[in-house]
Amino acid sequence: MTPVRLALVPGEPAGVGPELCVRLAQRPRDHALTAFADARTLRAAAEALSLPLHLLGPDETSTRPGELALVDVPNAVLPAFGQPDPRNAAAVIGALRDAAQGCLDGRFDGVVTGPVHKAVINEGGIAYTGTTELLADQAGCDVVMMLANEVVRVALVTTHLPLREVADAITAPALERTLRITHDALRRDFGIAEPVVAVLGLNPHAGEAGHLGREEIDIVEPTLAALRERGMRLVGPLPADTAFLPAKLRGFDAVVAMYHDQGLPVLKFSGFERAVNLTLGLPYPRVAVDHGTALELAGKGSADPSSLFAAADTCARMAQARIQTSRPPSA
Amino acid sequence: MTPVRLALVPGEPAGVGPELCVRLAQRPRDHALTAFADARTLRAAAEALSLPLHLLGPDETSTRPGELALVDVPNAVLPAFGQPDPRNAAAVIGALRDAAQGCLDGRFDGVVTGPVHKAVINEGGIAYTGTTELLADQAGCDVVMMLANEVVRVALVTTHLPLREVADAITAPALERTLRITHDALRRDFGIAEPVVAVLGLNPHAGEAGHLGREEIDIVEPTLAALRERGMRLVGPLPADTAFLPAKLRGFDAVVAMYHDQGLPVLKFSGFERAVNLTLGLPYPRVAVDHGTALELAGKGSADPSSLFAAADTCARMAQARIQTSRPPSA
Repeated sequence: MTPVRLALVPGEPAGVGPELCVRLAQRPRDHALTAFADARTLRAAAEALSLPLHLLGPDETSTRPGELALVDVPNAVLPAFGQPDPRNAAAVIGALRDAAQGCLDGRFDGVVTGPVHKAVINEGGIAYTGTTELLADQAGCDVVMMLANEVVRVALVTTHLPLREVADAITAPALERTLRITHDALRRDFGIAEPVVAVLGLNPHAGEAGHLGREEIDIVEPTLAALRERGMRLVGPLPADTAFLPAKLRGFDAVVAMYHDQGLPVLKFSGFERAVNLTLGLPYPRVAVDHGTALELAGKGSADPSSLFAAADTCARMAQARIQTSRPPSA
Repeated sequence: MTPVRLALVPGEPAGVGPELCVRLAQRPRDHALTAFADARTLRAAAEALSLPLHLLGPDETSTRPGELALVDVPNAVLPAFGQPDPRNAAAVIGALRDAAQGCLDGRFDGVVTGPVHKAVINEGGIAYTGTTELLADQAGCDVVMMLANEVVRVALVTTHLPLREVADAITAPALERTLRITHDALRRDFGIAEPVVAVLGLNPHAGEAGHLGREEIDIVEPTLAALRERGMRLVGPLPADTAFLPAKLRGFDAVVAMYHDQGLPVLKFSGFERAVNLTLGLPYPRVAVDHGTALELAGKGSADPSSLFAAADTCARMAQARIQTSRPPSA
């Protein structure tokens, strides 16, 4: 079996991203990793952590610990640990775009990304709301943000929206799009033939038969009914407070939450360290760490690499599942 | 030390409330329990579970297992297990009111309540939105709903409100009232001299410096600043998704959430069975089970009594703490 080829983007060069990538490169792996980064930044991180790092050319591949293929994306300046420089914004975003383009062109099977510092990118003159949005624009498709750990996968209908705008954003098309993308990803990327998806209500107690809001009756229930007709196994709308009870969760392949703070507290409580952030709906799997740049820890070697390790493992599994799903049955 | 005197109200007579009360009465206890219920209902539950039950007069007290003092509140009809009768609405609500009045009059030190069936009460012709509201009206005071287990205590600024009405309900007076009542209860009822209270933002990422909503800047932060001036230890506004990380939670005596589905999923995920529902702000402690009437389980003895046991233990501790707090230092 040819190993899947993952593109690895460290994110903010002054944060913990580069050193986490160096630590990732030390692990035995069954997938090929190619970093899109500045060679000097990775070497500085390796040196700070006293770890070996042998950088290979962009067309080489290796699964050997300590080795990493590199597409060199030079930063404007080599920043000090913990001190991001807005002049590097173009390189940070360029590395993301190049890695994604490599997937769109079929040279890579997935992208793994470290943390980006949103404010620094914007200070650097690049309008950036998030990597999820950037990759969706580049690929020209609708996407869904999913956060996942070993306990639960949570997909969101709305993401970074003020709470007072959430109710109006829960439309039948938005909900249908989220459910379709989530369902397809569970089949294609996770290899679950008939996924069971729990859908939360918008209102407390899922509206309590209309007493606490009518969106469940007017929007959620008809949408679920229509999608069930098309063969999707959907449970809900469920009250959010009890949908996450461990006994119930075990019956769901994913939970679709209507908004950010309804879905993510349990996910982070139940296993923040190993949580990853997935972009579903792209032509390739993309998995990111579920933490920030942790500038105060950069260069010290004390940042927990669990989330990046989980992101790489998850992305490799997803890429492998896509290859198997797309292979003709006779192969 | 005189044992504290708790009033015990089973709630819906056709649900699991009566049998849970009978099971509670079997436990060794350091507090006196007086049930406000129909003697026939309690006896039928004891018989169904083959448990001993010796009912004492209303003015007797006993901490002996199997014994329970009783203020007889006759139901209109003796319902079959699992089949609530709306004709009993007056008795169900009457028992709640009588028990609460007993606390207001100083005859009892706290109230422990089982689950009430809201729809059946309303069918019975009594306008009832919840026991929390009923007790607040009766006592004529502002209250806060708190849910708690061994992991976390969550108090809510808004409770059973459609999501689209939440943002407008987060006003400075509402927030101040919730924080004041929560802070006072942590001191008086939980014996925490200088409680640390985490306050969540309304918006995702607590508004991200205004990019995702301005309520944190316009309402939450000024309110917290004013209350800190008055000596309260308040942390926030915090992003809801990371505020519940176990390492952070250990530093908080309570978390104040802005709305129902922001605060309760983690609480229920982390320990539903032992969770209890508290009404803070009343002249007496009131603790309820955090589950419903479970009609399908009634009379079978299989309903989990953990929540009622935790409610009684919590209420007894709170009542004891109030007595100690109110006692003059020389006593």
